[in-house]
Amino acid sequence: MTGKLLVVGLGPGGAEDMSGRARAGIESCDLIAGYTVYVDLLRDEFPDKEIITTPMRKEVERCRAALEAAAAGHSVAMVCSGDPGVYGMAGLIYELADEFPPVDIEVIPGVSASNGGAAVLGAPLMHDYCVISLSDLLTPWETIERRLVAAAQADFVISLYNPSSHKRPDYLQRACDILLQHKGPDTVCGTVRNIGREGQEAHVMTLAELRDTQVDMFTCVFIGNSQTVELNGKMVTPRGYLQRED
Amino acid sequence: MTGKLLVVGLGPGGAEDMSGRARAGIESCDLIAGYTVYVDLLRDEFPDKEIITTPMRKEVERCRAALEAAAAGHSVAMVCSGDPGVYGMAGLIYELADEFPPVDIEVIPGVSASNGGAAVLGAPLMHDYCVISLSDLLTPWETIERRLVAAAQADFVISLYNPSSHKRPDYLQRACDILLQHKGPDTVCGTVRNIGREGQEAHVMTLAELRDTQVDMFTCVFIGNSQTVELNGKMVTPRGYLQRED
Repeated sequence: MTGKLLVVGLGPGGAEDMSGRARAGIESCDLIAGYTVYVDLLRDEFPDKEIITTPMRKEVERCRAALEAAAAGHSVAMVCSGDPGVYGMAGLIYELADEFPPVDIEVIPGVSASNGGAAVLGAPLMHDYCVISLSDLLTPWETIERRLVAAAQADFVISLYNPSSHKRPDYLQRACDILLQHKGPDTVCGTVRNIGREGQEAHVMTLAELRDTQVDMFTCVFIGNSQTVELNGKMVTPRGYLQRED
Repeated sequence: MTGKLLVVGLGPGGAEDMSGRARAGIESCDLIAGYTVYVDLLRDEFPDKEIITTPMRKEVERCRAALEAAAAGHSVAMVCSGDPGVYGMAGLIYELADEFPPVDIEVIPGVSASNGGAAVLGAPLMHDYCVISLSDLLTPWETIERRLVAAAQADFVISLYNPSSHKRPDYLQRACDILLQHKGPDTVCGTVRNIGREGQEAHVMTLAELRDTQVDMFTCVFIGNSQTVELNGKMVTPRGYLQRED
């Protein structure tokens, strides 16, 4: 008997951010797998499911365990916060699948932290944008730096994931210093912490102010393009509809 | 009495792609506003709501009508396909809000077409990526071209919106010709048409093949980075977990 493996995005916040497809997908499985913190959010919603949890940083083990259970005939929902296709587990599942007997794999998307955080701040991602992770655990810092420069030079809005951690408290500052070589210090920026969760907090500020702001790993950072403005406390990038009307 | 205006993302496909928050938000309103095609999808789901529709290209009128109704005391759900913060109506609502008496505005995010299309193709957006619209209705083509070059040179994965229309049948070809100056012809690419809807269709191909593929305005296009591979028919960009293990 062939099992199935759904890689399910929970969205950025609580259970109400999940799509109907995500909920039905988890319902259809007998086993939930995931990083401890996210799975804990689901215990109340799906009390009858068996659960496999693995701690942070054990991504490869987590995916192998899910594939192994599915290959043994289980139906497994591997859950990820936000969207599983954005710095989540979807890619790794496909990369590891060939180690196991064939399994039906399906990715059910979720609202990404970028899109969820943008909604809290206003509408910063209304024009062409880049998503960049500042974590250099898996990516050389030189590559990250090259992408920051390219994004600034081509005037993309930028959404930063993993802007800081205990081991890299100054990475956002380093990123801002690079951006400040190509963008004005008054560029409108924003931060959102704990998107859609208890203690959600959002701030709009300038790039110069962002440089001197300490954020943590639960924060998503947004850097405007040259057109981004602050409107009544919201961060808004015009698409150009009104400018066309003129 | 102050009205409220929710700008609600429906996700890329049918009603099951909507989040619980989006559904509850629409339920809480007495009026639904939006582009005819998306609103039609909702008539069955919310049969008791009053509906204001406006045709395509009338974005400014659509947003003004929604703000006017909210300012008159209605609770209005302005619905958008995908995420309202990505080439949707969220920004314009904030830009126009000052023309009307104060209204409570909230954006409820949805799964974007990028994230939804990526899930169908596999996991192309697992590493840093750019979202670029090829429509030059509101953006000069020179700006679009500069962003394509920057994205290619910095080895971002690229997600293209509005890759083609009746008036611009050759824009994807033009974009591919620019990308081919900076990326190999064997770069793994993908297209998804009618994401999450009837007639959904996905194809994985090379950049050279994409250049000679005719797509329409209902298609989202993905261009891999230098690490993107095809695995059993899926488009997958490794994040680097397995490469780190080596």
